[in-house]
Amino acid sequence: MAKILILGTGSMAVSHATAFAAAPNTELVAAVETDPARREAFGKQFGITELFADLESAIAWGGFDAVANVTPDAVHYPTTMRLLAAGKHVFCEKPLATSYPLALEMAETAEAKGVINMVNFTYRNSPALQKARELVMAGAIGDIRYFEASYLQSWLVSKAWGDWRTESRWLWRLSAQHGSKGVLGDVGVHIVDFASFAANSEVANIDSRLKTFHKAEGDKIGDYPLDVNDSAVMTAEFANGALGTISATRFATGHANDLTLRLFGTAGGLDVRTDGKVSSLKICEGPDIDSSSWKDVECPPVPTTYARFAKACNTGVNDEPTFRRAAEVQRILDLCFAQEAARALHAAAPVVTD
Amino acid sequence: MAKILILGTGSMAVSHATAFAAAPNTELVAAVETDPARREAFGKQFGITELFADLESAIAWGGFDAVANVTPDAVHYPTTMRLLAAGKHVFCEKPLATSYPLALEMAETAEAKGVINMVNFTYRNSPALQKARELVMAGAIGDIRYFEASYLQSWLVSKAWGDWRTESRWLWRLSAQHGSKGVLGDVGVHIVDFASFAANSEVANIDSRLKTFHKAEGDKIGDYPLDVNDSAVMTAEFANGALGTISATRFATGHANDLTLRLFGTAGGLDVRTDGKVSSLKICEGPDIDSSSWKDVECPPVPTTYARFAKACNTGVNDEPTFRRAAEVQRILDLCFAQEAARALHAAAPVVTD
Amino acid sequence: MAKILILGTGSMAVSHATAFAAAPNTELVAAVETDPARREAFGKQFGITELFADLESAIAWGGFDAVANVTPDAVHYPTTMRLLAAGKHVFCEKPLATSYPLALEMAETAEAKGVINMVNFTYRNSPALQKARELVMAGAIGDIRYFEASYLQSWLVSKAWGDWRTESRWLWRLSAQHGSKGVLGDVGVHIVDFASFAANSEVANIDSRLKTFHKAEGDKIGDYPLDVNDSAVMTAEFANGALGTISATRFATGHANDLTLRLFGTAGGLDVRTDGKVSSLKICEGPDIDSSSWKDVECPPVPTTYARFAKACNTGVNDEPTFRRAAEVQRILDLCFAQEAARALHAAAPVVTD
Amino acid sequence: MAKILILGTGSMAVSHATAFAAAPNTELVAAVETDPARREAFGKQFGITELFADLESAIAWGGFDAVANVTPDAVHYPTTMRLLAAGKHVFCEKPLATSYPLALEMAETAEAKGVINMVNFTYRNSPALQKARELVMAGAIGDIRYFEASYLQSWLVSKAWGDWRTESRWLWRLSAQHGSKGVLGDVGVHIVDFASFAANSEVANIDSRLKTFHKAEGDKIGDYPLDVNDSAVMTAEFANGALGTISATRFATGHANDLTLRLFGTAGGLDVRTDGKVSSLKICEGPDIDSSSWKDVECPPVPTTYARFAKACNTGVNDEPTFRRAAEVQRILDLCFAQEAARALHAAAPVVTD
Repeated sequence: MAKILILGTGSMAVSHATAFAAAPNTELVAAVETDPARREAFGKQFGITELFADLESAIAWGGFDAVANVTPDAVHYPTTMRLLAAGKHVFCEKPLATSYPLALEMAETAEAKGVINMVNFTYRNSPALQKARELVMAGAIGDIRYFEASYLQSWLVSKAWGDWRTESRWLWRLSAQHGSKGVLGDVGVHIVDFASFAANSEVANIDSRLKTFHKAEGDKIGDYPLDVNDSAVMTAEFANGALGTISATRFATGHANDLTLRLFGTAGGLDVRTDGKVSSLKICEGPDIDSSSWKDVECPPVPTTYARFAKACNTGVNDEPTFRRAAEVQRILDLCFAQEAARALHAAAPVVTD
Repeated sequence: MAKILILGTGSMAVSHATAFAAAPNTELVAAVETDPARREAFGKQFGITELFADLESAIAWGGFDAVANVTPDAVHYPTTMRLLAAGKHVFCEKPLATSYPLALEMAETAEAKGVINMVNFTYRNSPALQKARELVMAGAIGDIRYFEASYLQSWLVSKAWGDWRTESRWLWRLSAQHGSKGVLGDVGVHIVDFASFAANSEVANIDSRLKTFHKAEGDKIGDYPLDVNDSAVMTAEFANGALGTISATRFATGHANDLTLRLFGTAGGLDVRTDGKVSSLKICEGPDIDSSSWKDVECPPVPTTYARFAKACNTGVNDEPTFRRAAEVQRILDLCFAQEAARALHAAAPVVTD
Repeated sequence: MAKILILGTGSMAVSHATAFAAAPNTELVAAVETDPARREAFGKQFGITELFADLESAIAWGGFDAVANVTPDAVHYPTTMRLLAAGKHVFCEKPLATSYPLALEMAETAEAKGVINMVNFTYRNSPALQKARELVMAGAIGDIRYFEASYLQSWLVSKAWGDWRTESRWLWRLSAQHGSKGVLGDVGVHIVDFASFAANSEVANIDSRLKTFHKAEGDKIGDYPLDVNDSAVMTAEFANGALGTISATRFATGHANDLTLRLFGTAGGLDVRTDGKVSSLKICEGPDIDSSSWKDVECPPVPTTYARFAKACNTGVNDEPTFRRAAEVQRILDLCFAQEAARALHAAAPVVTD
Repeated sequence: MAKILILGTGSMAVSHATAFAAAPNTELVAAVETDPARREAFGKQFGITELFADLESAIAWGGFDAVANVTPDAVHYPTTMRLLAAGKHVFCEKPLATSYPLALEMAETAEAKGVINMVNFTYRNSPALQKARELVMAGAIGDIRYFEASYLQSWLVSKAWGDWRTESRWLWRLSAQHGSKGVLGDVGVHIVDFASFAANSEVANIDSRLKTFHKAEGDKIGDYPLDVNDSAVMTAEFANGALGTISATRFATGHANDLTLRLFGTAGGLDVRTDGKVSSLKICEGPDIDSSSWKDVECPPVPTTYARFAKACNTGVNDEPTFRRAAEVQRILDLCFAQEAARALHAAAPVVTD
């Protein structure tokens, strides 16, 4: 029976608590929240009686095995390191940390401690993704040679999700000082993980280009400087040799929230799609190759990351996506940002006039 | 009445002669071919009586205004330069030249001479492409922000077009010393031109990665070293600021010959597809944006590059695609090759062991 | 009579106070220091009676025109911005800020306010440097085409300055978490400024490579992770078209502290050397070019940056090196770090095994 | 007794023939030259009676063991490959080939054949260089950390060697179509080889920048387009981990022909200089490190590359510099050119105007 503590009680924590409350052999035993009113409300909502104002008090109490870390991004590192030191299993919201070196340190520490360490990459919950990977690993499409992966959103054009020009829930996502790392940090990480997980191979080489478009007078709306990337495009090579492209944008007019992954191998092709709710999978293989025909593939339901973490705590066997995996994704993000920083600083140079 | 000479009588010359024979106000008056038997046969096939063994004899004769240059790639430059010096209009097969500097010199010479100069980028004949560009220029999708362009073939996996392992018509396309520049030179140029033409904007920045996969023992089949690129992927920025990806591959299992271009702007999106024979166009605009709905767009027939060249000779007004345009596409190819050469030479370095 | 406040009273502040005390038409009127004992001692040492525990109290008092900002690097930005808002002249220790965007904001704010803004690049005090620039501006060596610039130290090998393995005054310079940006941040900035100032041209293009060598077991000594750059090498192009190299290292066995700048132009060459105390200048020009002969150039004493700041406060005319200049140098540092970060993150990738 | 054939009888062949005539256990037995008058004159000058108009006739005759290949650069590859097939030892002028793949093929073929294969890098004849390498290999300066290498010429400014604006012996060196690869191909190869040979470590990483300055109206003088690099600058990392710079220029006003190499290690520094005729060496080591003192090092005479080749033919033991070494230097040249090509093609792009 895994005894779970919820660390942080913001909106995402509700998803965690709901999922863990429903998981077999799992018990919500405590929550940590600095704000008294929110702490009380959260405890009431989920019937949690052990409520703490800070992590140290909870650790002093000690009645939990595992933690769902739903703190703000910058707090993931110190809180998780403290929990690992205390020998607790940790399920951390993404991004694992704010930089690769920190994420790597978390992964190495968790592995050295031998505790369960997982990250909540929610798109792993897509049945089509899991089925695609299963097929890849079974050799159904042979050696992967080429791929195209994109995460398309359009909320910078569409009003289907509201008006980003006036709503703070969107404006903060456009502004570094409000904690955003742009489309790359927001959803780009998902498509990088998605593509590489399905292909069953790490990302080896990346050349990226990020771009922030002019969207308002003075590139600012109220307190929000609009300075983070709106689009991110990459060429990528996987460790298995496959070469392809990975993209994410908030300007894909005509797509609300669509992940598409196409994998092409020496024995077939796969086409994975999901909008985060419904996913689908097609395959072209065998005699269909010569006629370029594609068939639908049935994708059975899959356990969620929450369920897998709960199970891992009970079995003691770590599961995907691990901290190490999250660190690897963080490495790619940091690399994209470094490449873009170098490009921007170069572009700010005076012109040669010889 | 444009009097046209066909320079070179290989298989592509038949397409040229057939098209020009059918064009209004156009007359096939002569052909040049070094091989006597092929020269006779070609003359007979198209009822051409003025047949020459070399270009100089034809120029000495002088009874033509315009030339369809269907010589081997490496011969485009010297023959075209000679024809421009003689004041002739030139319609040249792609690629215009074997390098950017040569292509640029051809463009500048043709412009200085004031003659008609066009290149046979055949995918310009797609009604969907021409309609998409028309919509872009009319502002139907606003300012373009993001795009995805790919040219997908699968003949390295599929046998629908024959077996590349045994047929010389495919093997030469895999081998530099047989004149190939890989998928990039073969069809990559088309998708680069296609995307940038539809977007009505030149390619400003390119970061590319090319790859040659291991395909046979010793990377060689008979006399064919298998050394050219099988896949080419790029991130690209257009002069209008749009950021996206451009790809071409011969490993897209499940696609025989498919060009896909997706353009996303601040007022709508366009989806252009063609297999070289049939093309289609979809749009998402206006109220459809909030529901992510796409509608088919009717695409009326368009004049071919042959017809446009014939008309340009008669009107004296140059038409697209011009030599300058072809030079610009050549620049991008050369850039991709230089980037890949630098990468490969770097990769051949000894490892640092400090 | 410029009334100067010393902000921060560490060891460098002694140099500032001593210099300003000796400058004409200049008065040391106040000092700010959080530590009471040091505050008292500093006041006593320089006969300053207006002593404040924080900047706000000093601003509330208001009896000063100008400030020597000798706070820790990370505090330069907030304190200077506050002083600019109060309309004070500011003479800031280098580096101006911890990043280019912050440095640029400081420069733009100072310029908008119209106050004197200068940075203490001490190598500007070299008579040979100032004379070299004068000669360049007078056309003595024609158009500069090529240059070599290096700042050579050897304290990682030599014990002439003490033992870095055991002394904290050296160890902190090897460790990012102790505030170091390595040889590049420490003295690399000087050689970049030195070269570009003498050449009278901004740095336009930089390609750099930084390196941290293995120096102790576990790359750590006590609390000091040894993680910052020991050497920094660059190829650089100036806005005037000159191409050359700029380097800085702590491993130049045989050189304690030597700046060398060689400028080569279409009408002559210059050779500038300084060890921070004594500087020398040689020239090859006119008939000496054909015999490759070099002659010594007399270099008269020059006013120090302190003297120039004091004078600028009195005349109201800003002088070199300005905040804008320091921001430009900061841009180059940031670019070097971004290039190195991208390189390091790329190097951490898994290997391709196709 | 090595029987040597001189292949090609241009001015450089005189140096070869003179050197081999004077070498012990070596006999000049034949020469190949297409021009009859030059062939006769060369035979007479060196008392060679077996004279051939082409290589095949000489091979049919067969009375030689070894060949000094002094043909034009582009002919090195086919002639050497033919000689290797015939089992002959080959001493080839630099550059070994016109590209890395060809040079590598020559090296691999020579090694497979087991014949003596050497290249005439003449700066290997410098006593100071050989002594410096000896000291490095003996550990006299410990592990090399930092280096500076430059090859400085000034004939684009000085008239000491004549006037490049009017003399064809200089003009061809400025023009690609006359066979030049600029300062990099001309003397840059020497400084790359020089530095890496002294350091006893291959070049692992290179980032280069080449530049062609505007030197005449229309960048052309008569039939000579002035289009090759005048300066070449690089940051370089050796396989042993040392980081430094390598440069070559024709604009170093004040230096006629000076190679300078400075190596800095964990136990000392070396300073190697040569003008191609006289060389010198200084060292800073031991207690001199703390005082930054440098001492002269005696450098005994060393055998020339000619003498070493002759000896290798007699002993059967291959010597430096080998074909493989020359191929490695060629790799670096090709890399520099690819990097510069990518840069130039990028710079020719239209500007982004969003």
